[in-house]
Amino acid sequence: MERIKRSERLGVMLSVLSQTPNRIHTLGEFCSMFNAAKSTISEDIDILQDALAKFGMGELTTVAGAAGGVRYRAIMDPDTSRGALEALAARLREPGRLLPGGFLYTSDVIADPETAGTLGKLLARLYYDARPDFVLTMETKGIPIAFMTAYMLGVPLVIARRDSHTYEGPAVKINYIAGAAGDRIETMALARRSVSPGQRALIIDDFMKGGGTIQGMVDMMREFQAEVVGVGVMIATAKPVEKRVKGVKSLFTLAEADARTGTVDISVSPQFR
Amino acid sequence: MERIKRSERLGVMLSVLSQTPNRIHTLGEFCSMFNAAKSTISEDIDILQDALAKFGMGELTTVAGAAGGVRYRAIMDPDTSRGALEALAARLREPGRLLPGGFLYTSDVIADPETAGTLGKLLARLYYDARPDFVLTMETKGIPIAFMTAYMLGVPLVIARRDSHTYEGPAVKINYIAGAAGDRIETMALARRSVSPGQRALIIDDFMKGGGTIQGMVDMMREFQAEVVGVGVMIATAKPVEKRVKGVKSLFTLAEADARTGTVDISVSPQFR
Repeated sequence: MERIKRSERLGVMLSVLSQTPNRIHTLGEFCSMFNAAKSTISEDIDILQDALAKFGMGELTTVAGAAGGVRYRAIMDPDTSRGALEALAARLREPGRLLPGGFLYTSDVIADPETAGTLGKLLARLYYDARPDFVLTMETKGIPIAFMTAYMLGVPLVIARRDSHTYEGPAVKINYIAGAAGDRIETMALARRSVSPGQRALIIDDFMKGGGTIQGMVDMMREFQAEVVGVGVMIATAKPVEKRVKGVKSLFTLAEADARTGTVDISVSPQFR
Repeated sequence: MERIKRSERLGVMLSVLSQTPNRIHTLGEFCSMFNAAKSTISEDIDILQDALAKFGMGELTTVAGAAGGVRYRAIMDPDTSRGALEALAARLREPGRLLPGGFLYTSDVIADPETAGTLGKLLARLYYDARPDFVLTMETKGIPIAFMTAYMLGVPLVIARRDSHTYEGPAVKINYIAGAAGDRIETMALARRSVSPGQRALIIDDFMKGGGTIQGMVDMMREFQAEVVGVGVMIATAKPVEKRVKGVKSLFTLAEADARTGTVDISVSPQFR
């Protein structure tokens, strides 16, 4: 193999690392990829760490031990995070998003890959230390955000369905109380083989009002003997103040959405301001 | 701003480009990011192009004209593509994936971010020239693949639903013929505001047998006066040979899935071998 210049090596290495966020790559992997010594690769990593820090573009960490190596996390610096969230809040306040019944149209924002990527980075950031084995969401609207959170955490996504489907095999089916008034019973199903006992679940959804759907997912995890290590949502309503599930973190708080007056009061949640 | 070394610049630049696939970045953007001259950035791009080519890690293209700049496409080289597809086919043949009724359990494969990323790269590769404005899919199982295809193409994802939901506003609802026997009528809904007349749609789904759901999506696009510029699926069955929609490209072909005999005959589609 021809000799690879450091500048080329750094570009390719960071590209590999940033396309597989939060996954540990051994130094040996890069040694054989570039036909370079371990000391050379170590120096490369130092250079990349500095460069990323300078541009607030994420963190490169060396992990010691037998399963050690180097890992990229797409952590945005506080200023960039705040700017991205404020820009999104402004988009969510756009006139015309308010639907009859006080619903906010967010599907376009959620399903835009760049926005979903940003939301995924921000949500993943909150749960690195919780070390989830997978991300759980309930179909359909929140899937892109949950998927990008899973992508940034380097873990699989598991999707609970409204119904069990033949092509997913045996499933666990539960009922849960939906609607803020707590007056509607809905069904949630999850394929038996999708979760193993003892696994750590991170629940991610796009919206929480009363918290019924989230409570349903928590109950579902109990059926699978899995541990819920965190719950994150894109938007939580300010009311009701008492949610069915405690400790849920939200990126945005929706204080008011009134179709009659055309008011949308949505803002970045306090801890991100 | 302190002086940035070329090696640092290359790492950060490729990381920015590879995290926003198929989006054009102006040279000016990098000039101001690194406080460097245009000629310097041009040289950087040449170096990165060579490095990526050497490692089969994607393509960096300079686009001329007023809206010009530089763009990264995550195009895998033929050997890597073939290897990834063959490895996936082997996973899909694993015993225990076969469910009663001859269904194949694929949810875990689809919702794994790394696999979805690979499938997204391979599907996007087929449709760069079709220049879609968005990717359309039908909920739920195929969403991660459709989303990653959209991500790689740098366009939004649009999700058709089984029912129209209050929180998506006015919707178009159509009926379509589902099931290989053509004996089941189902409903598909799509928010009015999600597609504009004249837009170019790329339809992506995880599975096609008779092609009824795909035909439903094609019909839906007609309602929106949008043009279908391509249809790609992860798996297509060999039978029936006549599909409702012509010209569908599939990554895998499922020749047989028989729960009684335990046979799963799935292989990489001819054009990818």
